[in-house]
Amino acid sequence: MNIGFIGLGVMGRPMAEHLIDAGHSLTVSRVKPVSQFLADKGATAAETPKAVAEASEVVILMLPDTPDVEAVLFGENGVAEGLQPGALVIDMSSIAPVATKGFAQKIEELGGEYLDAPVSGGEVGAKNAALTIMVGGTEDAFKRGLPLLEKMGKTITHVGGSGDGQTAKVANQIIVGLTIEAVAEALLFAKSAGADPAKVREALMGGFASSKILEVHGERMIKRTFDPGFRIRLHRKDLTLAVDGARELEIALPNAAATQQLMNAAIALGDGDKDHSGLIRTLEALAGQKD
Amino acid sequence: MNIGFIGLGVMGRPMAEHLIDAGHSLTVSRVKPVSQFLADKGATAAETPKAVAEASEVVILMLPDTPDVEAVLFGENGVAEGLQPGALVIDMSSIAPVATKGFAQKIEELGGEYLDAPVSGGEVGAKNAALTIMVGGTEDAFKRGLPLLEKMGKTITHVGGSGDGQTAKVANQIIVGLTIEAVAEALLFAKSAGADPAKVREALMGGFASSKILEVHGERMIKRTFDPGFRIRLHRKDLTLAVDGARELEIALPNAAATQQLMNAAIALGDGDKDHSGLIRTLEALAGQKD
Repeated sequence: MNIGFIGLGVMGRPMAEHLIDAGHSLTVSRVKPVSQFLADKGATAAETPKAVAEASEVVILMLPDTPDVEAVLFGENGVAEGLQPGALVIDMSSIAPVATKGFAQKIEELGGEYLDAPVSGGEVGAKNAALTIMVGGTEDAFKRGLPLLEKMGKTITHVGGSGDGQTAKVANQIIVGLTIEAVAEALLFAKSAGADPAKVREALMGGFASSKILEVHGERMIKRTFDPGFRIRLHRKDLTLAVDGARELEIALPNAAATQQLMNAAIALGDGDKDHSGLIRTLEALAGQKD
Repeated sequence: MNIGFIGLGVMGRPMAEHLIDAGHSLTVSRVKPVSQFLADKGATAAETPKAVAEASEVVILMLPDTPDVEAVLFGENGVAEGLQPGALVIDMSSIAPVATKGFAQKIEELGGEYLDAPVSGGEVGAKNAALTIMVGGTEDAFKRGLPLLEKMGKTITHVGGSGDGQTAKVANQIIVGLTIEAVAEALLFAKSAGADPAKVREALMGGFASSKILEVHGERMIKRTFDPGFRIRLHRKDLTLAVDGARELEIALPNAAATQQLMNAAIALGDGDKDHSGLIRTLEALAGQKD
């Protein structure tokens, strides 16, 4: 199949590679030295998103944020200008759910189909084709995109209509971010009260406090291993989607908002590129405790 | 063994019963109609905590809060006045870690031993002798208390010195309360954005957002089954221990504090005796959404 792939970053490169390895013809947006290996494997470089779309039945996007997706789709020389009749756009970026519904509607009005299909699982998941993919869109579009998504991910859920994939991703990042913050508060409390945080974590595993986060990120906090993983800077973006979305929807998400603020502080304190478990360092700084 | 048991509430009654069933002689503080079955099984009633202590090698407390424990131990006709040489006091209530250290020291100065051994697992865990018990105290006291704790609980962890059991319990309740709040924010966001919360929960299970809370309490939020379980009123008490403890320790726990405030609101809105998963109703009320 002729596939366009726009956004060859840390995530996009291995994802695109899996599609080539599965025998698809790829047209990509730009080839830099770091993505030269894709050209060596047969990917064709095109000048603009418009040119990518002109060559593709399916156009996949993997971009940093909402304005990037908007510009690539609807900006000058964007995908919309080159969209082939009946082409499927799959946006795998993590962006705003409300904006996504608008993007999907515009693409459908142009005669295309649209899926929002954000992922979790990070660089490791992308490399191992083991991403969790949360998909929004029509049943037909989902069936059409699924064989491609299966080359990049393992757990693929059709959550609902357009935007619902992005909504699930934001919900995921709310829970992950706030649970990390909760574990950080608990371990800081334990240490400050004179208990051994490792012993406390051990006592809590298996009960109602148990979670993937207590297991993995709790251990990182105790062992002080804050190499990413998933960077605080990126998680701050996702909580911004939650907080901005809450404003648009007129709902209050007090702990998402407070945790976004803590991530602002983490970045201010120079920890933006540390793993999100490093949020405990921000609480420690607030408590006058040094590393 | 001659054991004193003070505090025959919803938790204390089945716990005391397990000790009688294991062949121990129990002296209890007061027998009300609801605890008559313990007298029928051979428990002796004593007039005061002092009288309970005079008859016991081990005195177990299962009381509502810090001031109750203080009054029973050190008030007029309290345990301290009747404490036998070398007697072991085991406080299984969930109370303040810092105050606990003081209580333990006083009991030790009187020639006794002290364990703080708060539990989680609720009424069901108490009835099934399946409680999780987090223990603080010396190694000797722990070894001495363990055979009795094993009659009441399943997972028993010696966390550290005096107060560390209570510290672990507070840490547990911080994580449980804040994770419930996180799941509630995520599911409210999902519903408000037009997605199906059940589908979103399903998409998130298995990934980094997965937890016992997303599994059990997430399902309660979706199915709207808010019978306790564990009451918001009681969890508010535990977060008060966290927030008061944070003040004493001079650390900031922003999300524990905000979640305590939400629980205040939950109680104000008439939900104090609902399960803590009912916290989603408070966020819904803040969003102008009716049940």
